[in-house]
Amino acid sequence: MNDSRRFSGVIAPVVTPFGEDGAPDVDRFVEHCEWLLEDGCTGLAPFGTTSEGNSIGIDEKMELLEELVDADIDPKLLMPGTGSCSVADAIIMTEQAIELGCGGVLMLPPFYYKNPSEEGLFRFFAEVIEEVGDDSLKVYLYHIPPVAQVGFPLSLIKRLRDEFPQTVVGLKDSSGDWANTKAILDAFPGFEVFPGSEVFLLEGLRNGAAGCISATANVAAKSIRNLYNNWQGADADRLQGEVTALRKAIQAYPMIPVLKGIIAHYRQDQGWSEVRPPFTEMPREEVAKAVEQLASEHGFKLSFAEND
Amino acid sequence: MNDSRRFSGVIAPVVTPFGEDGAPDVDRFVEHCEWLLEDGCTGLAPFGTTSEGNSIGIDEKMELLEELVDADIDPKLLMPGTGSCSVADAIIMTEQAIELGCGGVLMLPPFYYKNPSEEGLFRFFAEVIEEVGDDSLKVYLYHIPPVAQVGFPLSLIKRLRDEFPQTVVGLKDSSGDWANTKAILDAFPGFEVFPGSEVFLLEGLRNGAAGCISATANVAAKSIRNLYNNWQGADADRLQGEVTALRKAIQAYPMIPVLKGIIAHYRQDQGWSEVRPPFTEMPREEVAKAVEQLASEHGFKLSFAEND
Repeated sequence: MNDSRRFSGVIAPVVTPFGEDGAPDVDRFVEHCEWLLEDGCTGLAPFGTTSEGNSIGIDEKMELLEELVDADIDPKLLMPGTGSCSVADAIIMTEQAIELGCGGVLMLPPFYYKNPSEEGLFRFFAEVIEEVGDDSLKVYLYHIPPVAQVGFPLSLIKRLRDEFPQTVVGLKDSSGDWANTKAILDAFPGFEVFPGSEVFLLEGLRNGAAGCISATANVAAKSIRNLYNNWQGADADRLQGEVTALRKAIQAYPMIPVLKGIIAHYRQDQGWSEVRPPFTEMPREEVAKAVEQLASEHGFKLSFAEND
Repeated sequence: MNDSRRFSGVIAPVVTPFGEDGAPDVDRFVEHCEWLLEDGCTGLAPFGTTSEGNSIGIDEKMELLEELVDADIDPKLLMPGTGSCSVADAIIMTEQAIELGCGGVLMLPPFYYKNPSEEGLFRFFAEVIEEVGDDSLKVYLYHIPPVAQVGFPLSLIKRLRDEFPQTVVGLKDSSGDWANTKAILDAFPGFEVFPGSEVFLLEGLRNGAAGCISATANVAAKSIRNLYNNWQGADADRLQGEVTALRKAIQAYPMIPVLKGIIAHYRQDQGWSEVRPPFTEMPREEVAKAVEQLASEHGFKLSFAEND
């Protein structure tokens, strides 16, 4: 392992609970974050895609982040999503993350206009980095072309690293394309690369990845962390097989609604199943069936005994 | 013409000028809006796609809108873009538009997550409309699938109109697909439909459209308005031909940079050419060539004598 890494291991893009008034629910959020760290997460990435990050207002996000730090969660473990279509809003959120001492930020490119020029994308990040103007800023590029449509070609990654070597330190690759992840790992040794799914964790680690940032870490961090801890062991391929099978079983359902439904089920707290539009919550009876399938076929079960 | 219409004619999605500090430039913005109304615009749609609306921060947009109203521009002529990926931010901006007395709002659907369900999109708009809870709210749906990817199928338009007949009163169709515009016009008589380009203005008006909301109205409102005023005249097809030729000549260049470059050129104010990333400004010499081509081939020229 490279000791200069700020982040490594298993990072959850934390799902965001909403209260009865539709606003983000701070208590449920903090409780879930604390539990994730107990369950095996080495870091937390609030306001990612799984977090419905772009569905949450800027003021709402800034309040949630502050509450996490106020709740004594180590800010060095936090990698909040601060990207935005607007460079102005990206700067506001990134500045707050720095003020709170966050270990890094996970930044989407501006994703409204399609097929932007590489120069335009470079300028976006250059403007954020220069405006924030703080050496403690560590930017992780968020490459998720299936959703954002706009992504990071290798040439752009190279240019950003060359220009800001102390700041642009890593990338989450949610392309779902191992060949792309491998190309980035090969091209940029030392870059903190996180595949966006634990399906690629073992192959990633064998090729220099730092870990993974994965939606399903919201409910399955323990087993992913076990694989991470034992990736050089004789049992690693078998562990990866189990982790992959569970991931594929979960992602057969609509990801965000099923994750929240699973948490609602095991916490016996139906409010947890709420999502913001354009998503719709998963009906309780469908969640029950999913929970049963995951339990019987994968021995999957959540336990909150430690902090309940 | 239908007298119950709130908007009709030629509406410009106003380009947004930036100052030397990179912030939106209020003085240039107000001056341009005032000039657009003199040049023939019947309404203004700030914070649209051409406005780099999603590249402007929420606080920045709210300040600009307030400045327009403070400058005595009739709020009934304003149809600001208040859509957002976040229902929370969409509500904040829409509430402000209502407080300021805006004639309508032009709302993008939440566009981060791709292929959302129709139910999810319906809930997004229902939540905004119900939370704002004001009869004076008039929502124009903003259909621009080439950019937003997420759009409004006929079934969703129908459901929103059926549920909120006094509120969901129109649509801007920037699909670039006349067959789609025609299908909407045929399906919903009385719906205030605006093609997103003056290329479809005459055909649109002949089929019940309310006018057009077009990027190029930022520099060519006079001729588009002339067509609008004379669409039932013997000369209408010839006027449409001229309008179409100019539009096609302008859109051969990168739209937002060339519009700002043209304004910068004729105003002799280079600051006008600034764009926000992911766009890059059009080099001055390229703008000069474009201006010359448009002048020589289309007799195109901007005049600011009236208010300079």
